[in-house]
Amino acid sequence: MAVNSPLPIAAALKPVAGIEIGFAEAGVKKPHRKDVLVLKLAPTATVAGVFTLNRFCAAPVQVAKANLDGVRAGAAPIRALLVNTGNANAGTGAAGLAAAQATCTALAGLLGCAAEQILPFSTGVILEPLPVERIVAGLPQALSGLTADNWYNAAEAIMTTDTQPKAGSRTVTIGGHTVTMTGISKGAGMIKPNMATMLGYLALDAKVAQPVLDQLVKTAANQSFNCITIDGDTSTNDSFMLIATGAGSLVVDSVDTPEYAQLAAAVCELSLFLAQAIVRDGEGATKFITITVEQGASVEECRKIAYSIGHSPLVKTAFFASDPNLGRILAAIGYAGVDDLDVSKLDLYLDDVWVARDGGRNPAYQEADGQRVMQQSEITVRVKLARGTAAATVYTCDLSHDYVTINADYRS
Amino acid sequence: MAVNSPLPIAAALKPVAGIEIGFAEAGVKKPHRKDVLVLKLAPTATVAGVFTLNRFCAAPVQVAKANLDGVRAGAAPIRALLVNTGNANAGTGAAGLAAAQATCTALAGLLGCAAEQILPFSTGVILEPLPVERIVAGLPQALSGLTADNWYNAAEAIMTTDTQPKAGSRTVTIGGHTVTMTGISKGAGMIKPNMATMLGYLALDAKVAQPVLDQLVKTAANQSFNCITIDGDTSTNDSFMLIATGAGSLVVDSVDTPEYAQLAAAVCELSLFLAQAIVRDGEGATKFITITVEQGASVEECRKIAYSIGHSPLVKTAFFASDPNLGRILAAIGYAGVDDLDVSKLDLYLDDVWVARDGGRNPAYQEADGQRVMQQSEITVRVKLARGTAAATVYTCDLSHDYVTINADYRS
Repeated sequence: MAVNSPLPIAAALKPVAGIEIGFAEAGVKKPHRKDVLVLKLAPTATVAGVFTLNRFCAAPVQVAKANLDGVRAGAAPIRALLVNTGNANAGTGAAGLAAAQATCTALAGLLGCAAEQILPFSTGVILEPLPVERIVAGLPQALSGLTADNWYNAAEAIMTTDTQPKAGSRTVTIGGHTVTMTGISKGAGMIKPNMATMLGYLALDAKVAQPVLDQLVKTAANQSFNCITIDGDTSTNDSFMLIATGAGSLVVDSVDTPEYAQLAAAVCELSLFLAQAIVRDGEGATKFITITVEQGASVEECRKIAYSIGHSPLVKTAFFASDPNLGRILAAIGYAGVDDLDVSKLDLYLDDVWVARDGGRNPAYQEADGQRVMQQSEITVRVKLARGTAAATVYTCDLSHDYVTINADYRS
Repeated sequence: MAVNSPLPIAAALKPVAGIEIGFAEAGVKKPHRKDVLVLKLAPTATVAGVFTLNRFCAAPVQVAKANLDGVRAGAAPIRALLVNTGNANAGTGAAGLAAAQATCTALAGLLGCAAEQILPFSTGVILEPLPVERIVAGLPQALSGLTADNWYNAAEAIMTTDTQPKAGSRTVTIGGHTVTMTGISKGAGMIKPNMATMLGYLALDAKVAQPVLDQLVKTAANQSFNCITIDGDTSTNDSFMLIATGAGSLVVDSVDTPEYAQLAAAVCELSLFLAQAIVRDGEGATKFITITVEQGASVEECRKIAYSIGHSPLVKTAFFASDPNLGRILAAIGYAGVDDLDVSKLDLYLDDVWVARDGGRNPAYQEADGQRVMQQSEITVRVKLARGTAAATVYTCDLSHDYVTINADYRS
């Protein structure tokens, strides 16, 4: 179902030295599916992450943030990430926190480290108790199968309503050092990340100092996972984790180096690929839409307008119908909340077609041209505000019958 | 299709002395449907309105606002309102403004008044030129049929994707004077009014001073049309107009009178009825949802949270499916943008069922109880924030397959 998104090929996903992957079929919610994932890290690894700003942030997110803070304050390094699907452990109060801690304690016991050296992640239904015992019972299976070339299985193990796994690898040479990086992501609904998406993990084998990695994960998230939306619903469990295993030869200990700039460019590119893969596999998606707002007074107002277009159910159903009912885009621009916007200078393009000019219909615009673009599976909406030099881009998909079907049926 | 919203009965809609109504089948977009409406006012009438805050506000909205401003500055009173469906005359630039003016000039010529004494309104597709000549050609038909008891036809004449006309009448006795009021509204999609809804008109036969009416229309809109949402899309053409014909015996010339308070209560009640009728007839709606947020620190934060729930596609599809997947409501509360919200004190009720307590699942909550409420066609979501005494209520509907069908097919 995903829009122009080929399945990753398992053999093309490169192992990242310093990280081993195991999974289990633990029956968290349903039997016979991969639903528990363990990423075991070398002792040299640094980890940084960005998390949802949802006030109902899930118990595992709270634990993961606290444990990362501990490392920054001098505690022993993170040794493993533990992910379960089938249950979000969100909206679960104090019991949920204890449950997340219990899974960390169990994995730490098996790995011979402290519970604070584990980062837990959950995704699935909100407001239901986490079945701790089933997850813990699955850990030996996950650990017995730890291998470095398990990224395809990892991508499958974190899927929920996703129709396909999302993963990619890159190799870059920086200052004579080869850096290998592989990432996975998941998510198809409840997607309007605010600091991160549902779940994304990107590992690379350079040695990157903690403050540098903290900066890099924010930069990468802001250029990728924080530029996508499917339904405008910000999840309680959004997390994007960047892991530098330290197993390779490149060392990056400052953001003020050419090595950092090159590494950041590569990480951002792969992050954007993983983020776009989520939109391409958006629940019910039949179209992949890029919305670029240019000539704004600030990046913030460009993002506001781009998200207003990207969230409008009327715009999204028009894309689904391949109907060039493009006045709906103007309406969404108008209510985006940019109060001093002078619409009489605004231009709107659909790919190469100049639809609106100076705030009104372009006299040269032909419905047939709009129709032609609307029938494509990938479409770019471009808005020119004529009030500055800032720009922003947001990626989204259309709203189809299948979105309603999927979300009316989920859980059942 | 509308949720528990009986059709208005033509005979139950009361004429309002001082206002005559005529309509035409002008073929604005399609033949053989009422699409032009004229409301002719007595010379004693005062008119006040609230309009969309969409920056792409339609040409007729700009003209109507300017003409109302003129009256406040001393110009001759408004003599008629002219409404067309089938075309919004929005996103039409300078040509659209001229088109709106042209329809006013034509009607003014037939009525023997100035063009500035006409208020124009349009609703329909955005970004397409207004067919002025067809509207003007329909005016003689509309004027030849002017009668006081034409409110049912008026309600029908302003429908677009509405499945039924929306209208109501009230009679109240204030200080010994009988006041008759009748109102109509329309709208089913692109509904998240910001100062007013798609189109609403409420006429009463008291004599109300202009500054008093200006205050009253804002109060009424804030308690009715500004509390509803269907899809979160704020229209370019939202207008809510309050007409006091001055043909009755009640005179209200100050807001600091018991008469004003009683009149305001009656106007607010009828306005809320008309606003709720829009939600009940929301595109594809199968459920009518009341969202009340209580114990907030401010009305604004309560409204933020209520709209966040009311706009969430995941919450709305869960209602459509009658699925008590209520964690989605918590997620929507969490991303509403109330940054210092302490969710550990938050309670959630679904009608009488206590679902979440102190931020987590209520231990006494049974899925069967949630299921029972979700199967109803009218449901109240109640959120208690435990941080103050403010409250707000928003009315919305579910998101169904028919919403997608209607909006993917509209125009075709």
